Amino acid sequence: MNPPDDFLRWSQEITQTLEDFLHRHLPSPSIAPRRLHEAMRYAVLDGGKRVRPLLVFAAGELSGAPRDALQVVAASVELIHAYSLAHDDLPAMDNDVLRRGKPTCHVRFGEAHALLAGDTLQSLAFQWLSEFPLHPDPARQLAMIRQLAVASGSRGMGGGQAIDLESTGSLLSLPELEAMHLKKTGALIRTAILLGASCGPPLSSEEERHLAGCANALGLAYQVVDDVLDAEMDTATLGKTAGKDAAANKATYAGIMGTKQAKDFSRELLRTARESLELFGPRRRRLEELADFIVNRRS
Amino acid sequence: MNPPDDFLRWSQEITQTLEDFLHRHLPSPSIAPRRLHEAMRYAVLDGGKRVRPLLVFAAGELSGAPRDALQVVAASVELIHAYSLAHDDLPAMDNDVLRRGKPTCHVRFGEAHALLAGDTLQSLAFQWLSEFPLHPDPARQLAMIRQLAVASGSRGMGGGQAIDLESTGSLLSLPELEAMHLKKTGALIRTAILLGASCGPPLSSEEERHLAGCANALGLAYQVVDDVLDAEMDTATLGKTAGKDAAANKATYAGIMGTKQAKDFSRELLRTARESLELFGPRRRRLEELADFIVNRRS
Repeated sequence: MNPPDDFLRWSQEITQTLEDFLHRHLPSPSIAPRRLHEAMRYAVLDGGKRVRPLLVFAAGELSGAPRDALQVVAASVELIHAYSLAHDDLPAMDNDVLRRGKPTCHVRFGEAHALLAGDTLQSLAFQWLSEFPLHPDPARQLAMIRQLAVASGSRGMGGGQAIDLESTGSLLSLPELEAMHLKKTGALIRTAILLGASCGPPLSSEEERHLAGCANALGLAYQVVDDVLDAEMDTATLGKTAGKDAAANKATYAGIMGTKQAKDFSRELLRTARESLELFGPRRRRLEELADFIVNRRS
Repeated sequence: MNPPDDFLRWSQEITQTLEDFLHRHLPSPSIAPRRLHEAMRYAVLDGGKRVRPLLVFAAGELSGAPRDALQVVAASVELIHAYSLAHDDLPAMDNDVLRRGKPTCHVRFGEAHALLAGDTLQSLAFQWLSEFPLHPDPARQLAMIRQLAVASGSRGMGGGQAIDLESTGSLLSLPELEAMHLKKTGALIRTAILLGASCGPPLSSEEERHLAGCANALGLAYQVVDDVLDAEMDTATLGKTAGKDAAANKATYAGIMGTKQAKDFSRELLRTARESLELFGPRRRRLEELADFIVNRRS
């Protein structure tokens, strides 16, 4: 099933908007410390599917959020994602050499610079979220900053990575695997959606509840599909090392359920996500298309 | 010259307030991921002179800032400092095994957990700054978050570390050394002072200018004294590996100027800092005592 042309145009336009913003606002490599600024740009620019930024914009349509705010939030969430990849690829963590079809940041710039690039990308995310106007109510903007900090921290993405480390080689139960991924991947995916909607006028509490249901389901679906792709695809198609979960003896959905059942589970999560969105009427269109794209992607 | 008893009591009371806040608000090791939470607490608790938190509180007296806000800012600045030490000690950076008289975080918890502990401590700093009320005006609070993000990032502390890395083994001129340290150490020291004052009613523009002058001078003085101590003291006294700057062929004030001249320079900076504070009258007392303490410390 191919995504509709109109959705492809929309997503290309958004990723271009994001790329322009990042190019303009990431520190220039002509400013000292040059090598650090090069490493930061290398870790962020020209890469990835930009799923999180697309989620920010798609969720922004649910609440009619202005584009100026959405691009700042989308770029900040992507900085957090890019920093986590630069650190995750380090020899002390996953020790990976290939990412988005290119050498990983530490292979290109050395470990120390990859470490510092990750650190300063995280700082920059919080700088952007606090320096650009995101919402007419600054108290609401503070709440958005808090939400991204929690999603990145030890109860969110960083904590999920720690559980992943601690569990490598051990047998996780399905609920344990789910709990890990709801943090490791889910927290940032979920937060991208919630922050995108937050840039607009407040949702009703019923809308908020439904949106949270969609965000949870999609956060998990993303990882289930990732696990299946890691097991089924080759490195050239993925642009990152394939089969590494099995090689590292990591617990995955594909490994625990089998790929067939993992695929069924991802479709079930997609159904949940779509149902949660129904009450938004036509404003849900982009988020629904994006949910389809996430679950049906081939890389 | 010993600091006055009254100053010692004040600083003990502040560090106790800080320690209590950190104990209460750092994630508990009884919550998953336990090992990560242990590593975060290990990197932050029971250690250091807490110079930056003391600066936050001392500068808060200049503007009559409330203690509730000051303790949040002090704790957040200390999280940034602690995260930078955990990362700086990693084998990919300084490869140090001793910090505050204890094994460094990666020696105790492994490299991956030290990396993640640093990452999640940074997130937590921005979480605290956005979730606790720091100022009646939330727009002012946003500006404070931005200030800490800039001080931590590639134009501040993180950038200073990158310049330090890039310059190891090469001969820095004195202006280059100063530029590096104004970022590496100076940015966070300076920001501790400015954020402390920001928690209270606004200063006049003349007061702001003088405070910035004091903050710049003290940020640099701290590093000059650090360089002299590294050259003169032994490891047991410092609680961290002594003589490592010379061993690593790093540019230092002691190395470039000689220790005698570096000491004179630190006293000159202290004089500048004290003069900048004069217009604050009696409210400057704690910050002045703390400036004396920073320049005259023996470890």
